[in-house]
Amino acid sequence: MTTTAARPAEAPYVSAELYAEVQAFYARQMSLLDGSDIDPVAWSQTFTEDAVFGTNMQEEPDVGRAAILESLNGGLKHIHGQGPVDFRHWFGMVDVQEQPDGSLHTRYYALAMATPQGGSLKIRGHMLCRDELVRRDGRWLVSRRHLEADGLPA
Amino acid sequence: MTTTAARPAEAPYVSAELYAEVQAFYARQMSLLDGSDIDPVAWSQTFTEDAVFGTNMQEEPDVGRAAILESLNGGLKHIHGQGPVDFRHWFGMVDVQEQPDGSLHTRYYALAMATPQGGSLKIRGHMLCRDELVRRDGRWLVSRRHLEADGLPA
Amino acid sequence: MTTTAARPAEAPYVSAELYAEVQAFYARQMSLLDGSDIDPVAWSQTFTEDAVFGTNMQEEPDVGRAAILESLNGGLKHIHGQGPVDFRHWFGMVDVQEQPDGSLHTRYYALAMATPQGGSLKIRGHMLCRDELVRRDGRWLVSRRHLEADGLPA
Repeated sequence: MTTTAARPAEAPYVSAELYAEVQAFYARQMSLLDGSDIDPVAWSQTFTEDAVFGTNMQEEPDVGRAAILESLNGGLKHIHGQGPVDFRHWFGMVDVQEQPDGSLHTRYYALAMATPQGGSLKIRGHMLCRDELVRRDGRWLVSRRHLEADGLPA
Repeated sequence: MTTTAARPAEAPYVSAELYAEVQAFYARQMSLLDGSDIDPVAWSQTFTEDAVFGTNMQEEPDVGRAAILESLNGGLKHIHGQGPVDFRHWFGMVDVQEQPDGSLHTRYYALAMATPQGGSLKIRGHMLCRDELVRRDGRWLVSRRHLEADGLPA
Repeated sequence: MTTTAARPAEAPYVSAELYAEVQAFYARQMSLLDGSDIDPVAWSQTFTEDAVFGTNMQEEPDVGRAAILESLNGGLKHIHGQGPVDFRHWFGMVDVQEQPDGSLHTRYYALAMATPQGGSLKIRGHMLCRDELVRRDGRWLVSRRHLEADGLPA
């Protein structure tokens, strides 16, 4: 996935409508994983059926909603297996570049943080994220996501 | 207050104008509580006269601007009673849903952080927040706010 | 630089287009300093030739792109001289006020954070930032920036 064909500083800005929709999409998407009423299946449905989800923490990306959901459930088991915790994802510093076919390439930062019940907040890590978003039936879906956790060898 | 009648992922997006106004409103509102020139009375005036402000840290919500201001002043006394400190509120992951009557239901995350003079920054905690915003004389005001601090029993 | 002629709460909101452009500009600008492919020269070119960059950590502001770049390079040497690190800047709580001449006065918060290779994330500090942005050839540039690091005597 090439999201940097144009140097970001030179690329045109997307419309305010698109920029706001992307921000709202991310808020809603990640709310499905956070807090006490998480809904992993609904979260997986914010990806296309054939979405590709890769990270710098694994050799091969997950391909398809079922595989993405399976990886997520593994991660949730790990996080929530250590006792009740409020987990939160923050996305910020969002850049959006519209492609000729109407899809969007985004680049943003993510912070993962958690507060165990009765404990204090801990920032768990920072990631650089890149998505390809496509519109299906009027809604945005993620067709590709790549996460690079900070602090790992490139 | 029901802000989740529709599953967020299904609800229509608000216009970019509304989304930007809400973000700007929050930046301005919280700047009145942060830094060295705080203005608690002006902050309380970003709520309607009859606003309701509740949290999961207290039994009963504060009702009305005067009660909200009194609670705030108690909190400020606690925070600033320990010496000079730069306190900051960050809001993020904002979702906005427009209601049939033109009011807005918002859901967002908040981080509270503080840097004591001569000291280093400490993240104090994370909250899930829900507001009802209403327009009065062209300006947004908070008519209801509910904060859920992470890490407390639900 | 006076960015607070009007009490923020009373100032009109800028258009969603301007608000989104400023957010996207900041994401792109700071991406030039973050991560593994930093480009200090390109970053300095997001300032006007005669830009003024001041902070509460130095007596005199840097004046002009060359001086701004030199100060940046000093900072980068310090940060990256201690071994491989992923450095990140987050801007948030952005307020934008349009001036009669079309320039923008912005006020926002910044968090600086770093994850050393093989280590864990550390939040390094919080700043209150104020910019003057001007449009040149269709792009926003910073003509003035002032940073106030939290925790220093006012």
